[in-house]
Amino acid sequence: MKTLLIVSHPDILESGSQQYFLSSLKENVAVTLHHLESIYPNGKIDVAKEQALLKQHDRIIFQFPFYWYSSPPLLKHWQDVVLTDGFAYGNRGNALAGKEFGLILMIGIPEREYQAGGSELFSINELTKPFQAMSHKTGMKYLKPLTIYQFAYLEEEQKMDLLIQYWQKLTMEDEVSLKARETWLAAELEQAMEKAAGTQEAEIFQYAKSLIEENRMTIDGLKIVLDQMHQN
Amino acid sequence: MKTLLIVSHPDILESGSQQYFLSSLKENVAVTLHHLESIYPNGKIDVAKEQALLKQHDRIIFQFPFYWYSSPPLLKHWQDVVLTDGFAYGNRGNALAGKEFGLILMIGIPEREYQAGGSELFSINELTKPFQAMSHKTGMKYLKPLTIYQFAYLEEEQKMDLLIQYWQKLTMEDEVSLKARETWLAAELEQAMEKAAGTQEAEIFQYAKSLIEENRMTIDGLKIVLDQMHQN
Repeated sequence: MKTLLIVSHPDILESGSQQYFLSSLKENVAVTLHHLESIYPNGKIDVAKEQALLKQHDRIIFQFPFYWYSSPPLLKHWQDVVLTDGFAYGNRGNALAGKEFGLILMIGIPEREYQAGGSELFSINELTKPFQAMSHKTGMKYLKPLTIYQFAYLEEEQKMDLLIQYWQKLTMEDEVSLKARETWLAAELEQAMEKAAGTQEAEIFQYAKSLIEENRMTIDGLKIVLDQMHQN
Repeated sequence: MKTLLIVSHPDILESGSQQYFLSSLKENVAVTLHHLESIYPNGKIDVAKEQALLKQHDRIIFQFPFYWYSSPPLLKHWQDVVLTDGFAYGNRGNALAGKEFGLILMIGIPEREYQAGGSELFSINELTKPFQAMSHKTGMKYLKPLTIYQFAYLEEEQKMDLLIQYWQKLTMEDEVSLKARETWLAAELEQAMEKAAGTQEAEIFQYAKSLIEENRMTIDGLKIVLDQMHQN
């Protein structure tokens, strides 16, 4: 699976949260990082190039700061000029059909404010309807969004936890079962081990991997016991 | 009441619907027409000027084509730079509080598609949550939007009817009673009569006005009778 990560941020170097997540991307071949404001500083989008890029990927992610409950202007411009009738929708416009679409939102306000009675009034689910509708119209499968609230105020451990969720959103098959998450983690560890071959790190990775596999076998064993109890 | 009509359209001269409605505005002193793409062709917005303009008006209207379920990029940019913390929200940010806010949307797809099972999936009410949330956060009263579907396919009479609704959205006090609409129309006719003084048109306006007043008196009379019946 190949993921196109379309990032839109008018001032990305100043954003601690954007830098934190993007700096983890450098070596991954399965993710194409595509920061619109860097590529098109004058705002003139190369439509043919963008459409070709979309075709080459299976999962399309929009990552942006959620100012005024929507995307930055350049991403909206990108939508208006790239997702054309005949390409993304309409007669023979099925270039995106069957792909996956997801949002990664950086949000400056606490989660609890996103409800009736809160300062933001509506939930993220309500406020992102325009993107859900876009996903629907273009025939893409809408993934659960990753919402990152008040990143700067988080503890280091919470940030690390979000980084794992971030990686999963970008590269993990869209299944939520424990098994799927373990399979994903095992593959990630395998890759890390190859890179770290011969060093002490490799041994730690190997240990983590065997621990996960052991747990998996224990859980599978417990399931068999439970199934037998149900049958009796 | 003074209305600030903020229009955003990347190619307004090519839009028949925009031209139809905007051409009717020329002589009205109660409406300030403010087309962002004409005023800021290079996209650099004069924040202080925009904030001063907002303060001078009682009703703020956004008028735009509803591409990809949202505003054109320049209007989003305007929101991001003009509606700042300390001006539109946050500590002492109450410059818009108590004003009215409304949307006028030009929509290229039939109304029936804006529901579950339709090509657009969600209602206009659902898709405009980001603007409702903006109105809420800035303390403005959200007006019912004026939605104009597939303008080019309408009959002349339907267009005229929409033009009246358009004028009401821009200049009529936000009351839906028959009385409010009649009062508004009487005032509009009065203005038209002054301009047309001495011509045959003036007589037609006068006749229309007297007819409305007569109807009003008949209705008021019926109400008194009804009230008395209730009391007995």
